[in-house]
Order: sequence, then structure tokens, then C-alpha cells
Amino acid sequence: MANEHLNAGLKTSRIEALSDGIFAVAMTFLIISFDILLSPKKGISEKGLIVALQALWPDLLHYVEGFIILGAFWMEHHYQFHFIQRTDSTLLFINIIGLMFIVLIPFSTCVAGDYSDTRVAAWLLETNLLIAGLVFYLHWLYATAGRRLVAPNLDHRIIVFYAHRNLIVPLVSVAALIVSWFQVRWGPVLYLMVPFILIFYTITRTLHRTPSDSATPGGG
Amino acid sequence: MANEHLNAGLKTSRIEALSDGIFAVAMTFLIISFDILLSPKKGISEKGLIVALQALWPDLLHYVEGFIILGAFWMEHHYQFHFIQRTDSTLLFINIIGLMFIVLIPFSTCVAGDYSDTRVAAWLLETNLLIAGLVFYLHWLYATAGRRLVAPNLDHRIIVFYAHRNLIVPLVSVAALIVSWFQVRWGPVLYLMVPFILIFYTITRTLHRTPSDSATPGGG
Amino acid sequence: MANEHLNAGLKTSRIEALSDGIFAVAMTFLIISFDILLSPKKGISEKGLIVALQALWPDLLHYVEGFIILGAFWMEHHYQFHFIQRTDSTLLFINIIGLMFIVLIPFSTCVAGDYSDTRVAAWLLETNLLIAGLVFYLHWLYATAGRRLVAPNLDHRIIVFYAHRNLIVPLVSVAALIVSWFQVRWGPVLYLMVPFILIFYTITRTLHRTPSDSATPGGG
Amino acid sequence: MANEHLNAGLKTSRIEALSDGIFAVAMTFLIISFDILLSPKKGISEKGLIVALQALWPDLLHYVEGFIILGAFWMEHHYQFHFIQRTDSTLLFINIIGLMFIVLIPFSTCVAGDYSDTRVAAWLLETNLLIAGLVFYLHWLYATAGRRLVAPNLDHRIIVFYAHRNLIVPLVSVAALIVSWFQVRWGPVLYLMVPFILIFYTITRTLHRTPSDSATPGGG
Repeated sequence: MANEHLNAGLKTSRIEALSDGIFAVAMTFLIISFDILLSPKKGISEKGLIVALQALWPDLLHYVEGFIILGAFWMEHHYQFHFIQRTDSTLLFINIIGLMFIVLIPFSTCVAGDYSDTRVAAWLLETNLLIAGLVFYLHWLYATAGRRLVAPNLDHRIIVFYAHRNLIVPLVSVAALIVSWFQVRWGPVLYLMVPFILIFYTITRTLHRTPSDSATPGGG
Repeated sequence: MANEHLNAGLKTSRIEALSDGIFAVAMTFLIISFDILLSPKKGISEKGLIVALQALWPDLLHYVEGFIILGAFWMEHHYQFHFIQRTDSTLLFINIIGLMFIVLIPFSTCVAGDYSDTRVAAWLLETNLLIAGLVFYLHWLYATAGRRLVAPNLDHRIIVFYAHRNLIVPLVSVAALIVSWFQVRWGPVLYLMVPFILIFYTITRTLHRTPSDSATPGGG
Repeated sequence: MANEHLNAGLKTSRIEALSDGIFAVAMTFLIISFDILLSPKKGISEKGLIVALQALWPDLLHYVEGFIILGAFWMEHHYQFHFIQRTDSTLLFINIIGLMFIVLIPFSTCVAGDYSDTRVAAWLLETNLLIAGLVFYLHWLYATAGRRLVAPNLDHRIIVFYAHRNLIVPLVSVAALIVSWFQVRWGPVLYLMVPFILIFYTITRTLHRTPSDSATPGGG
Repeated sequence: MANEHLNAGLKTSRIEALSDGIFAVAMTFLIISFDILLSPKKGISEKGLIVALQALWPDLLHYVEGFIILGAFWMEHHYQFHFIQRTDSTLLFINIIGLMFIVLIPFSTCVAGDYSDTRVAAWLLETNLLIAGLVFYLHWLYATAGRRLVAPNLDHRIIVFYAHRNLIVPLVSVAALIVSWFQVRWGPVLYLMVPFILIFYTITRTLHRTPSDSATPGGG
């Protein structure tokens, strides 16, 4: 009974399925912030409904923000498993810890939306995202260290490129934590920049590259 | 490190899994509109329960409508990925934006059901569906423009056929927005026609076709 | 552009994924019936908690019943797609209608649990299961008629065997509707027999068979 | 019509998908314990919010515990299906019964968190985990007895190894039930040791092994 039968060589499809399921439910749970859902006031007038819906603007903004943040995490997760070819116990464990903080995002987004003028609510969300980002950064480091779970000839530049990309959310989180100290409402807004930073970073890094002999990912 | 390693050539299975998960949860969330679920009144008499269930009729109608609309969106999504063979960052981003409006459908269906006599509630639902429909129309245009992410020899008529099909929900939404202005209760009802329009459109377009040399989709 | 490119030949993996997702969420939603979840009374004494948990007995019984019913539906769905090799628009539509009634099961189970002494609550659950069962019976008939979506040489006895199996839930529902008229509490209990009927039916039908030249299902 | 067409030889992908979906939803449902989600008190002061968040500490601890327990169950499930190559009716039935107790975990974790000073709440959680663990232990025994559903030449030591691993949660549960009798707050805490026991057990069992002629799992 070789070690690899017990701890390594597991296919990646199930951890991808569990993660996709958790991301899907967490993204759908973001609508919980719309309190109106849980307590419909029947018999309200049209004017009253317009007022009630206008009061949902901050909730809608936080919904959009939460969705984009979860979407960005999902995309990084997707990219990581594009290159990760097999899993082991440790990787599964890191992944589950990361998902534990992903599931908290609808909760902390909801708190940050309902108490948008308090510093502690902003910090709760930003700390949540900082930790989640760091866990998935660690996830990539573990998988690629010594090319443990990726193709043995994977281009080193790809490893570095995605390591840096996975640091974007933690770095934005540190910035947001500082900004929230001075301007509580501006901290969470910083995350709306994440997709643009991702695109900008990707474009600038790939602009003057030429096709190289890098390893093609193994169908992962 | 070639561009295609960073931004393109991703398999489609994960975005399909995420989307299927979100559609599944959103469809199940539609039962939230049945308020009785959240506040059971124990000790109610049989007559009282019948009255309470009768009061659920509008909720049931909106549940059926929401399910059919989400089902129609899912089917278009399914058809699109029947032909889309790989994804890139932009397609994933468009998809996530589209899913963001899909997740809102249980919410706006619930509001439209609880306030079925107010114009603003009908418009909320119709605008939601209009935007979701346009995003997935854009999704198909992006994937097929220059046959970017589909088979290089995909029949042009298939591209046009599905582009038109994806315009059906947006066009019905525009009609519903206008109808709601005059008859608030009739706007949302228009969507019940969507499956029949889809079937009618498909039958009329394929009636006098003959098998051609169109590309067979690559198992997508 | 041949017809089969538009309406047929779709892979079955996505409708299986959507269905698995909906079954998974519906099965998890069954815990909604435990009202204690939604309104924890902190500061309750140990004796008070025991009383509160004892009051959950009927909810627990209905939870078990709902889970077994949903599990039985899922198994029939699984068996059907073991033989169904491709889908078309009509099958997807039948499936979505069936799922619409599957999603209602946690709702009607919850009502039947909370109002277990009223006939209308029992009938609600039983009618729900009757319709869901009939839709999936129709689903199998459609897929196998003229071997439309199954292997062209699929053994006729397999088609009949599963057609009969898919009639078990509707038949039990008719019996339960009648029983509920006389003894309201016994109707829903009948469904606990479904797994045993399924096992009994399967054993008796396969006991004196010998391996035949039936078609092996195509990996479906 | 051979027996194996009716009862055996089903692919494992769908029961894996259903299980992954249920695990994903159950893990996400753990946030239900954060009562603040369901009843946001707008207009609260920053100090009041800090107090409210501090009151969530026990909930957070139980959330982490619930997530780790569900994660451990999922990993054992994953390992089992790494070796199980096909399913039959009985295995599906055992699996569904097991999932029935998995779905209860967010409920009993929530109760154990809200009533952390009552013995009955601790016992509820521990009994839940004991039964879930025993069902999945039985699941493995059934699949491997006579190598019924695994590779015919699967190494006997692998069968024993995972049988023992699947006994860890039940054994910890028995210990926790006893500990809760004397020290109610310490029983549930024992489960935080599960990941470490799993790692310790795996390391000690595989330390002085050499690669052997054990069967490679068939891609399962």
C-alpha cells in the first residue's frame, strides 16, 4: 500500500464540484441582504413600495459588490485548477478552510451593508476577504511548490504569474482596512476595482510575451 | 508564456457547473415567496388553512412563472454551451454578470407576486429579465464573433438562429414593460408565452431545412 | 442546418447536473420544517429545550418521509438517465416541469407536518407527489417511445420494467388520497412503504430471469 | 434482462454530484446559526454592533466546528468513491440515509451552539454525528465486502485502512457522549481533534510501508 494511494493522486473533479456548489449557494445567499424578501408588507401602497425599494439601494450595491468579489474568487479558483492536476489531503484541507471563509462572505457583506457607517462592519468584511485571499494564495503555493500537484514541466513564469494574481485581493484588503480607518464608507468600495486590476495586471504581463515552450496544462 | 495559457483555452465544464448550481438554487429559492413556510401558524383550523392556501394562489402563479422563466434561461444557456467549446476571462465575466441578474429573479418575482397591483413591482421584474436576457445575448455574440470560442467551421445559420432565439426574452420584456404601463397585471403574464414562442420559432425555422454540412459541435 | 443540431443530440450531463442540484437543495430545504432553527429562544432551560425538541417529533417524521420520497424520486431519475443517451427540447421541458413539482415537496411536506390533523394538508402533499410521479412517468414514456432517446436496441423488457416502477409513486399517491379521506394521519405514512415496494418489485421481477442479449446502456 | 441491468453497474458520478451538492448546501446553511443575518437591527450604534458581534463568538466557534466536521465527512466520502467503481440500489440507499443525517448537522450544530450549556443539546449533536459516521462506515463495508463494488484486486490493506478511518468519527462521538455527561461544554469540542487524528492515523499507518502491488483505483 503505497503512500500515494492514501494521500495523493485523487482526481480534482470532486473538490471542483464541491467548490462550485458552495460558490453557487453563497452567491445566491447574497440576496438574503434584501430584507424585504423575508418580511413582505402586503397592502403597501405603490408610493410606499417605491420608498421601500429606494431604501434597498445600499443593499443592492453590496449585493453587486459581493457577487463580483465571489466571482473573482471563483475565477482564481478556476484558474488554479486549470493547472492543478491532482489533489492530496493537505490541498483538500486548505481548500475547505478557504471555502469556510467564502461562505462567510454573504454574512459579512450583509453586515457591512446594513451597518455601512460603522468601522467595525467594514473591517469585518475586509478581514474576511483578506483571510480568504491569503488561504487561496497559500493553496497555490502548496500546489506548485516543487511542482507538487501540477505538471512537472509547468512554466515557472505561470506559477509566479498566478501567485501574484492571487495576492491582489489580499493587497486590496490591506488597503481597504487602512482606508476604512479614515473614511469608513470608502473601504469596501475599493473591491469594485478588483476586476479592473485583474484585467490590467493580466494585460500588462502578457503584452510583450511571445509563445514559449511552456507546458500545456493537462486538461485540468 | 503564451497569452492563451493565461486567458483562453479554459474548459467549459466549471462555468457550466457553477451556472447549473446557481440556476438550481435560484429555482429552489422561488418557494420563498410562499410566506406560510416561514411563519407556520400552528393550531389553525382546517377552514383557516384552506383560506390561507387559497391566499397563496397569486404566489403559486408567480412561482410557476418564475420557474418557467428560469427554465427558459437555463435552456438557452445549455444550448449556447452546446456550441461553445472553450472559455476565456471575458466570457466568464459576462457569464457571472448574467448570473448576477439570474439570482435576482426569485427576489423580483417575489416582489411582483406580493405587490401584483403596483406598476413599479411589475417593472422591477421586467427590467430584471430584460437585462438578464441582453447579457446572455451579448454572451452569445462574444463567443461567436469571428467564431472566437466555437468550432471554426460552425454553420453561420446556427449562430444567427441562436442569436435570434436569445433575443426573444428581451423582446418580450420590452413588450411587457409597455403593457404594464396600461394594464399592470398583464405585463408579467406575457412571459408565460416564452416557451410557446421558443417552440414556434424553432419549428418554423427548421421546417424546410435539409441536413447540411454544418459543423458538428465538439461534444460541448 | 439539420434539425438534430437545434433540438436533439444534446448531451445529458447538464440536465443531470441541474436535477442533482435541485434535488440536493430541496433535500436540504426539508430542515426548514424545524421551526426552532429560525427562532432560537436563548436562555431556555434544559427542561424547556427537551420539551421543544419533543415537539419536533412530527417534524422529524415528516423530514424522514420527505427525504425518503425525494431520494426515491432521485433514484428513479438516476435510473432513467442510465438508459437515456441524449436529450431534446421536449425532454428538457418535461424534466423542468417535473423539477417544478419536486421543489414544492419541501413546502407541502412542511405544511403536512405542521397541520397533520387536517385533510387538506395531507391532500396537498399527496397531490403534489401524484403529479410529480406522473410527470416523470411521462418523461420515461417520451424518452423510450420508438426508442427515441435511448439505445436503438434497448431491451423492451427494460422499458416496461422502468415504466412500471415509475408508476409506483403515482399509485401509492392515489391510495394515500383515498386513505386520507377516512384516516387523515395514515395517508402520508403510506409513502414510507415506497422503498420497500421498489425493492420487492425489483426482486420479484428479476428473480427468474437469465442474462439476455439486452443492449448495454451507453455509459449513460 | 439481467440483474446487473436493473440493480448494479450504475456509474458513480451522479451519487457523487448529489452528495457534493448536499454537502455544499449543508456547509453554507451553517451560517444560519448567525441569527443577526435574519434580523438586522438598523440604526444600531457602533458600540452596539460590537457587542452584538461579540455575542456571536459561540456561534462562530460552532460554525467552524460544523464546517470542519462536514469537511471531514466529505473527505471520507471522497476517499470512498476514489475506490468505489460502480453503484447499486443498496449503496445508493445507504448513501441517501447517510446524507439524511448530514443535512441534520447544521440543525444540530445550531442547537448545540444556542444551548451550549445543556446536556441534551450536546447529545443531540453527538448522536447525529455518531449515526452519520456509522452509516458511512456501513457504506464502505457494503461496497468492499467481497470487493462487491471496487476493483476485484483492490489491496486488502486499503480496505482495512479506510474501514478504520471511517470509525474515527463514531469513536470520537462515543467519547464525546461520555465527556458531555460530566462536562457538557467539552463534548462537542472533541470533534476539533478529528482532522488531527485523521492526519496522525494516516501518517503512522503509511510510514514504514513500501510501494506494493496493490491495485490502482480505476479512475474512480
